[in-house]
Parts: sequence; structure tokens; C-alpha cells
Amino acid sequence: MGNPYDKANELARELKESEEFTKLRNLHNEVNNDEVAKRMLDNFRQVQMELQQKQMQGEQISEEEIQSAQKQFELVQQHDVISKLMEEEQRMSQMVGELNKIITEPLEELYGVDQEG
Amino acid sequence: MGNPYDKANELARELKESEEFTKLRNLHNEVNNDEVAKRMLDNFRQVQMELQQKQMQGEQISEEEIQSAQKQFELVQQHDVISKLMEEEQRMSQMVGELNKIITEPLEELYGVDQEG
Ligand SMILES: [Ca+2]
Ligand SMILES: [Ca+2]
Repeated sequence: MGNPYDKANELARELKESEEFTKLRNLHNEVNNDEVAKRMLDNFRQVQMELQQKQMQGEQISEEEIQSAQKQFELVQQHDVISKLMEEEQRMSQMVGELNKIITEPLEELYGVDQEG
Repeated sequence: MGNPYDKANELARELKESEEFTKLRNLHNEVNNDEVAKRMLDNFRQVQMELQQKQMQGEQISEEEIQSAQKQFELVQQHDVISKLMEEEQRMSQMVGELNKIITEPLEELYGVDQEG
């Protein structure tokens, strides 16, 4: 019998060698090596995180805050490398979600509505 | 180059053939084939879910509700098969968490604090 942990390690290696991950890492490094881009992105993420925390804690988010975040989003979207990075991040996030769905399929089957007991 | 999706499918198969999953499925089936146990567990989960939803929506949970849930938890814990099932569920949940940590390690590295850019 195999070992799920070994397979998980193999999967991590495949992920690391995948085209998607390579692209993501390259863009990540490109932004990190560009001081202006890095500050722009860090700032954007900081604001996003603060808004998320407020939302989770049920705090009110003002119209002003929403508009400011929206403007900042438009700004980073206009930055070529940052917008590519965010696109690749979304692609990676989708991929990890799909992989996760495949892996937990046996559990879904066990607990699913169409189970046969 | 390999394919993360193929590896994820292999991992799902390993998981399905693992001792942990086999135990979980057997206990799951044992409970499902015992009408009294099944009703007891379904009822317990229903109450748990309702309390969780209340909590997430920031609603107040009364002292009475907490005590009632606590009593119900003690009751299902005393049921031999249900308590074993819940134990195996916790083990499986931990295992899936560990597998997930292994798989997303490349991303942790990329975004980690000790990254080298
Ligand atoms: Ca079943
Ligand atoms: Ca890095």
C-alpha cells in the first residue's frame, strides 16, 4: 500500500515545477525587485486586508473606504507586471482549489447526498 | 514534465486506500446502518450547525443552548460507534490538513517572510 504523504510530496514537487508556478514566481520576483511596484502592491494588499478584517468583525465600511479601495485597485491593474502577477495568482488559486477538490473527492463521496451507505 | 492533476488523482486514490479512510468508511457505514445511532448523530450535527451559523452571523447564543449542546455532545460521546467515528473524523481532518500543508508548501515559500525575492 502506498502512502498519502509521499504522494503529497510528489504533488508539491509537480506543482513547483509547473508552468503556472514558474510564471508566478518570476512575476513575484519581478515585482519584488522593483521598489515602486513592490510598495504599490504592498500598500494595496494592506488596505485589502484591513477592509477584510473590518468586514469579518462586522464593522461598518464607509463609502469613502470602498471608493478609495476601488481607485487603488484600478491603479494596480494599470501596472503591467502587477496586473499579470494578480492574474497568475488567481490562476494558481483556481488550480489549488481544483487539486483540493480532486484530493477530497473520496470524502465528498462518503458524506455526499447520493451515498449508498 | 509531470502533471499536478495526475498526481492529485493518485493522491486521492492513496487516500481512499489508506487505513485511516477505510476505518472512517466502516464506522460511517456502521452508524448509517443503525437507525438509532444515525438519528442521534444527525440530530447532534444539526444542532452544531445551527449554533455555528448563529455564531457566524454574530447572533447571541444563550446559556441554555450551550448547555443543551454540551449535554448532547456528552450523549454522543457515550455511544461507542459514534465516538469512534468522531475520533476517526478528527484524525482524517488532521491528515487532510497535513497533506494540504505539504502541497501548498511551494506557495508558502514564495510568500513566506524568509523569502529571498
Ligand atoms: Ca457511503
Ligand atoms: Ca521569493
